[in-house]
Amino acid sequence: MIQRKLEVRYLPFDRTTRVPPGTTLFSAAHWIGLPIDSTCGGRGTCGKCKVRVTEGRADAETADHRLLRPAEIDEGWRLSCQARIYEDITCEVPQLLRVPKAATMGLGRLVILDPNVRKVYLELAEPTLEDQRSDALRLKEALTEEGHDMVAGVPVLRTLPSVLRESGFRVTAVLAGEHLVAIEPGDTTGDCFGVAFDVGTTTLVGTLMNLRTGMAASVLSTLNGQAPFGADVISRISHGMNGPDSIRELQNAVVSTMNGILASLYRETGVSPERTYEAVAVGNATMLHLLFGIDPSPLAVMPFTPAFMEPLSVLASDVGLEIHPRGYIQTLPALGAYVGADIVAGVLATGIVREDKMRVFVDVGTNGEIVLGNAQRALATAAPAGPAFEGSQIRCGMRATDGAIEGVQLGDTVELQVIGGDVPPEGICGSGLVDAVAQLLLAGLIDYSGRMKTADDVPGHPLRDRLIDVDGIRAFLLADGVYLTQKDIRELQFAKGSIATGIKVLMDILGIETKDLDEVLLGGSFGSYLNPESAKIIGLVPPVDVDRIIAVGNSAGEGAKIALLSYRERQVAFELPGRIEYVELSGRTDFNDAFVSVLGFPHLELVG
Amino acid sequence: MIQRKLEVRYLPFDRTTRVPPGTTLFSAAHWIGLPIDSTCGGRGTCGKCKVRVTEGRADAETADHRLLRPAEIDEGWRLSCQARIYEDITCEVPQLLRVPKAATMGLGRLVILDPNVRKVYLELAEPTLEDQRSDALRLKEALTEEGHDMVAGVPVLRTLPSVLRESGFRVTAVLAGEHLVAIEPGDTTGDCFGVAFDVGTTTLVGTLMNLRTGMAASVLSTLNGQAPFGADVISRISHGMNGPDSIRELQNAVVSTMNGILASLYRETGVSPERTYEAVAVGNATMLHLLFGIDPSPLAVMPFTPAFMEPLSVLASDVGLEIHPRGYIQTLPALGAYVGADIVAGVLATGIVREDKMRVFVDVGTNGEIVLGNAQRALATAAPAGPAFEGSQIRCGMRATDGAIEGVQLGDTVELQVIGGDVPPEGICGSGLVDAVAQLLLAGLIDYSGRMKTADDVPGHPLRDRLIDVDGIRAFLLADGVYLTQKDIRELQFAKGSIATGIKVLMDILGIETKDLDEVLLGGSFGSYLNPESAKIIGLVPPVDVDRIIAVGNSAGEGAKIALLSYRERQVAFELPGRIEYVELSGRTDFNDAFVSVLGFPHLELVG
Repeated sequence: MIQRKLEVRYLPFDRTTRVPPGTTLFSAAHWIGLPIDSTCGGRGTCGKCKVRVTEGRADAETADHRLLRPAEIDEGWRLSCQARIYEDITCEVPQLLRVPKAATMGLGRLVILDPNVRKVYLELAEPTLEDQRSDALRLKEALTEEGHDMVAGVPVLRTLPSVLRESGFRVTAVLAGEHLVAIEPGDTTGDCFGVAFDVGTTTLVGTLMNLRTGMAASVLSTLNGQAPFGADVISRISHGMNGPDSIRELQNAVVSTMNGILASLYRETGVSPERTYEAVAVGNATMLHLLFGIDPSPLAVMPFTPAFMEPLSVLASDVGLEIHPRGYIQTLPALGAYVGADIVAGVLATGIVREDKMRVFVDVGTNGEIVLGNAQRALATAAPAGPAFEGSQIRCGMRATDGAIEGVQLGDTVELQVIGGDVPPEGICGSGLVDAVAQLLLAGLIDYSGRMKTADDVPGHPLRDRLIDVDGIRAFLLADGVYLTQKDIRELQFAKGSIATGIKVLMDILGIETKDLDEVLLGGSFGSYLNPESAKIIGLVPPVDVDRIIAVGNSAGEGAKIALLSYRERQVAFELPGRIEYVELSGRTDFNDAFVSVLGFPHLELVG
Repeated sequence: MIQRKLEVRYLPFDRTTRVPPGTTLFSAAHWIGLPIDSTCGGRGTCGKCKVRVTEGRADAETADHRLLRPAEIDEGWRLSCQARIYEDITCEVPQLLRVPKAATMGLGRLVILDPNVRKVYLELAEPTLEDQRSDALRLKEALTEEGHDMVAGVPVLRTLPSVLRESGFRVTAVLAGEHLVAIEPGDTTGDCFGVAFDVGTTTLVGTLMNLRTGMAASVLSTLNGQAPFGADVISRISHGMNGPDSIRELQNAVVSTMNGILASLYRETGVSPERTYEAVAVGNATMLHLLFGIDPSPLAVMPFTPAFMEPLSVLASDVGLEIHPRGYIQTLPALGAYVGADIVAGVLATGIVREDKMRVFVDVGTNGEIVLGNAQRALATAAPAGPAFEGSQIRCGMRATDGAIEGVQLGDTVELQVIGGDVPPEGICGSGLVDAVAQLLLAGLIDYSGRMKTADDVPGHPLRDRLIDVDGIRAFLLADGVYLTQKDIRELQFAKGSIATGIKVLMDILGIETKDLDEVLLGGSFGSYLNPESAKIIGLVPPVDVDRIIAVGNSAGEGAKIALLSYRERQVAFELPGRIEYVELSGRTDFNDAFVSVLGFPHLELVG
């Protein structure tokens, strides 16, 4: 799986990077934060990104012959977006390639505003007997002059003759990549929007983005309309097994949810669906299969194979998504059956695979998705955690809504943090569970094996009255009617043990130890609420300094926004499956061995 | 418009050709009848077409790096389908590239059976925990092994999980180009069909082709269902000007006609629509605009601009054509507003632009489409002939149906050839008109200016009684109630004069005279019925030896079949607009001058 890397050096910066064979000079520069300016974003049509190869060979491609003079080619000039690296190379970047417009997004990521959707205002020459080019060719050649390629399908061709003639041949072309989405009368370049969707099993988040400014116009989240068919992916897949109609039912549910979000976003901002040309959607493999009405059932049974993992670009009208009907839905690729496009988006947003820092990214849920590595090498896996972190299978467990205990502090008394503020506690959610167990450990009320003590075991303890018995099972009373049982602790041990084992397996493959880890990143909405200290105490994450455990928020949504705003970042996301090695844990003996060894809790002196 | 040509030499054959810059070695070889074998048809995926460049430079492209060893690249080996010619080049073709399977079609054209639609039977490895590739990737990689690229859209992805699993992963992939049209359980490679359509303004011809054998399964022609909206393209366009609903009406009419033909072809042959994966459709620009529901109205007014001229590939289901719903309709390009894909197909079928012989191709109808040239240089134009050749605007004119006089012989008596055999003559159709006028000229009953003589002018002539007066206009009585008037002759003079002028303008641009012409090719159904001698006598075509005036039959349909059976021939058709210069006659002073000079008839001694 590991390819021999080739070295590229950029002058006059004297910056060097190592890349797999076949990478372009343009893309390799971008990976090390040396963005080369380009109008076409690296499609080989504008000719702006040329560099001079001074050592090593990069053959001239068709686009070079089209856009460079023969003398330039002989001198070693190449379009950096076309020049693929097959041996070590040194090249000079001309001074005038200044750094283009950019914004900081995700985890301190500098993102260049270079959306896949572009609007180009054109004042076309009107046809004459001396110039009888077809409407399509007239438009295409004008766009070529501006550095853009164009492919027009029949639906947009249908609008061409009338729009051109009614507007006196002054029009705005809307391109998604090379596809002509629309031709609009007059200059509409000021109005250009897209939407980023994080399609979660539980929650959908949609962000309407202004593609001209790079700013979010509005954001909205709502529950996934598939909820009536089950809380987790397995129950959704089970429903889909009832046949094609059930798959369509699930598809309609998620598309309706997305359309509901869009309707609100349009209402709130006054933006028109006709001016919203692209959606980037990320989610786990099951969610993306269902979004497109593709049977996900092989995902649920051994050997867990998806129908597709590659990024798809699908006409919005084919799915019924209410943006411009000739606009596109773009997905990001998946790394494996259970490490989906949401994780790829997270890797994009956090920049794990492009920096030298050794980091582990963990998205905790029913599955714990884990990515470990840096720019040199990276691994990914999914560890089956079960539903404990979602508050399921826990006696007083509940989802993170009003009345859920989300934080616990034990001292002489019990201090609780309850969602919704002044409401009485009704149950405990995942982050509260982690907190409670960590605090019980610190308070000496459970031992390293996870065994809960009885009141008799801790005679002088200020909280000994809280150690109770519920139907013959040991428990700790958190609040009136809300308690944590021995069995709940066992459930948590299995859940955190599985994720901790996944991390350990990846660390072993990479040959690193905890001291080599620079940062632990907690992704997903659960990661945002989790107390890093508690996560460390229960051994969910490796015991690094607490200030190196960082909640990265909705990194999936952030990655989707980045892919929406930047074509070159989107290309980076497309390349991630080739850069990250996927590790399947099922059937690995080292997983089973390690799992048993980490079921207990870490000794506190080791945690430090 | 004329590009500098580059010279390519193929060893060991020592065959040489001159091509425009950017042509591939593969394509250039094909043009001179030196087909290089290839599984992928020149898409750069199979690696079979490699040649060794011995003189001149051809840079290695991405596909070369993928499919050739570095040592081979250093020795000058290149995939001939990827190597573009930018300077004079000599290359060696390996012995083992034998000539692939071919058939003679069109006008003695050797066509290699290499359809765009290909079926590949695959026995895929079943997924395991060690091999969790997605269904799409599993299929794609197996196809890559066989030398094929694959892109799969959402509709076919929907069928993938179930078809793979129900068939035990033994499937047939159906590719149209790189697009995965279908995945079928088991081995269905024996069953592979396509359909070629010549969409004429009057008549549609559909030929169901077996893409495996290259044989026609069945052929059927029927009247265009748009007939109620007018007989010619101008009246169809006028109807379309009533708005989008009228355009849809015209679209539905032609699609229904095509579906009617398909239904009969399926019924007759037992072939299933699900096993018919591609349609190649040719026709004039108006017909193709209407086929796709695109407003053709700018074609009808100065400066005559089409919405598109490039070849389109459109999903059959988007148009409602009843072949496989994920199959494609492919059109050929047009050369100008009035030299459409039907003429491009005719050029493909006759091979005009690939041989050294100097030839003129004329398709006579309401417009006379003309292509003149050879492999060195070619020109095309359309001359407005008016409706005379269709039998309109002629006093006793009628379409070429039962009762129409289609042939005339004058001696001591009048001998008539009537369509339908023993039926009494009811009128005269285009070919009969041309015959009649030619015979009247030979009989000395009209003079070179076109003036009809009176009975008094030809006292001893055996046919002098036939020279009559109809409502004060001179006329010649052909049969009871069927006669030819002086005005009819004038109409024909204008019609033939326009076409003759078009030919003359092109000959002048090319700097050639009649003696330089090797052949005159008469295309279209009218061309098949036209008496070559008569065409020459009235001066419709240049006065070459009669045995060099050749009716080439339905060359448009033949070209469509060729494009259906051979991907490389299709590419040739796509390149024709770049090789043929389009000449617009409107507004040319030399056209008007020449037109006046050829309105009369040629002197017989000159015709020879």
